[in-house]
Amino acid sequence: MSEFSADPSHPRYQSLLSRHRLELAAKQGLLANSALIAHGRGEAYDYLLGEKTSANAMMATHNALGHLIAAKNPVISVNGNTTALAGFELLKLAEFLNCPVEINIFYRTVDRVNALYQHLNEIKVQHEINVEILGKNPDIEIPGLKGPRAKCCFDGIFNSDVILVPLEDGDRCEALVSMGKTVIVVDLNPLSRSAKKASITIVDEITRVAQNFLTLISKNTIREIEIGFDNNANLQNSINIIASNYADIEV
Amino acid sequence: MSEFSADPSHPRYQSLLSRHRLELAAKQGLLANSALIAHGRGEAYDYLLGEKTSANAMMATHNALGHLIAAKNPVISVNGNTTALAGFELLKLAEFLNCPVEINIFYRTVDRVNALYQHLNEIKVQHEINVEILGKNPDIEIPGLKGPRAKCCFDGIFNSDVILVPLEDGDRCEALVSMGKTVIVVDLNPLSRSAKKASITIVDEITRVAQNFLTLISKNTIREIEIGFDNNANLQNSINIIASNYADIEV
Repeated sequence: MSEFSADPSHPRYQSLLSRHRLELAAKQGLLANSALIAHGRGEAYDYLLGEKTSANAMMATHNALGHLIAAKNPVISVNGNTTALAGFELLKLAEFLNCPVEINIFYRTVDRVNALYQHLNEIKVQHEINVEILGKNPDIEIPGLKGPRAKCCFDGIFNSDVILVPLEDGDRCEALVSMGKTVIVVDLNPLSRSAKKASITIVDEITRVAQNFLTLISKNTIREIEIGFDNNANLQNSINIIASNYADIEV
Repeated sequence: MSEFSADPSHPRYQSLLSRHRLELAAKQGLLANSALIAHGRGEAYDYLLGEKTSANAMMATHNALGHLIAAKNPVISVNGNTTALAGFELLKLAEFLNCPVEINIFYRTVDRVNALYQHLNEIKVQHEINVEILGKNPDIEIPGLKGPRAKCCFDGIFNSDVILVPLEDGDRCEALVSMGKTVIVVDLNPLSRSAKKASITIVDEITRVAQNFLTLISKNTIREIEIGFDNNANLQNSINIIASNYADIEV
């Protein structure tokens, strides 16, 4: 893979850049086999959403940030795609929240965890980000899950009260909710199991979401946490955006 | 990648099988970097379409088959994803039509063409399918295209009057239409450029489409070609299916 050379004025520049980052990450061994296919599904849903952050998604992002700030033990869980697309931004967010980042992958192998750790650590060192990166030495399991995908760290995911876990699998999302945590997912498909199970679902693209978090922090425009955030209404609003985009279309 | 072991009763068995075939094809060097991402986009659209052949898609399939049978020089163009997902079925279709299959890839490299040729030839020999496989030695270019993606064979794509070219790029689709051919594409996104440019767009998943072709042939239920097939109406019907699926949804 050569250097990325698309023109920033290209209407699909951001989409091409994300694709490039993932292809690169695949070559570096950061991704599972199914990661590129999952990204493609995301691309399709993002296209249907107009490839921009909706007002609805921004409200969910505000709310999520409020919960993370108010948390006692927040944590940010990252997998391969999240790391490839928004590793830097999420490390910066963790530094602001003074919380750890935990590598937490569905198809867990030692090689891939190590590759992700090295990648995140390089970003951390290069940008002098003060953050703890967990996940290399899991010491406990998420109740209700089996096998390698259950593994996590007590000081990270296990003991957290609020968890930001973008692009998460439905089973694991459900298991985390069952532990009593406030689970914040980022998912472009408002009908996915994760989207429906989460406490707060940000129906938006992870690169934009991570940047939105940092923008909200830098502008110091964090809203008070809305008590009783209605995630079903939030999802329905995103579904309505897709439906209305399609209903308006004439070939 | 180990053997595929999903339970055929799994509600998403076919989707998992397709994903497995593509991951395997990627390891065999049959696919471009972007192929898995493209498949993921297709998965998302297929989900929106209900993961089944609509009556509308079946009408387009009927019509496409009628045009292929009536053609003077039909041809079937295959790329990496098409070969991985429906190589056998399309070779069988070509045998029935007494026409060549041409390997025709967007990111053309000699290695990948050779790998695809070898893969298709193995299927051909194993199942004793009487069909000519072109594409290894392109001898002419598609007018209006530049670079490796313009290459094709005179006795295949160039001289054809009706071409079945599933999962095609928009530029190439347009260039083939400009040559005066009847261009039949298979595309799960009814709003893609290929879908809009083609003469006949089958908005359906290539594995199902290829099987539908063979079923129509075996049942000898090929309709007369509908003169003046309205592809815009065909696309609008598929868009309506997606829109109505979304509009009906309550979280």
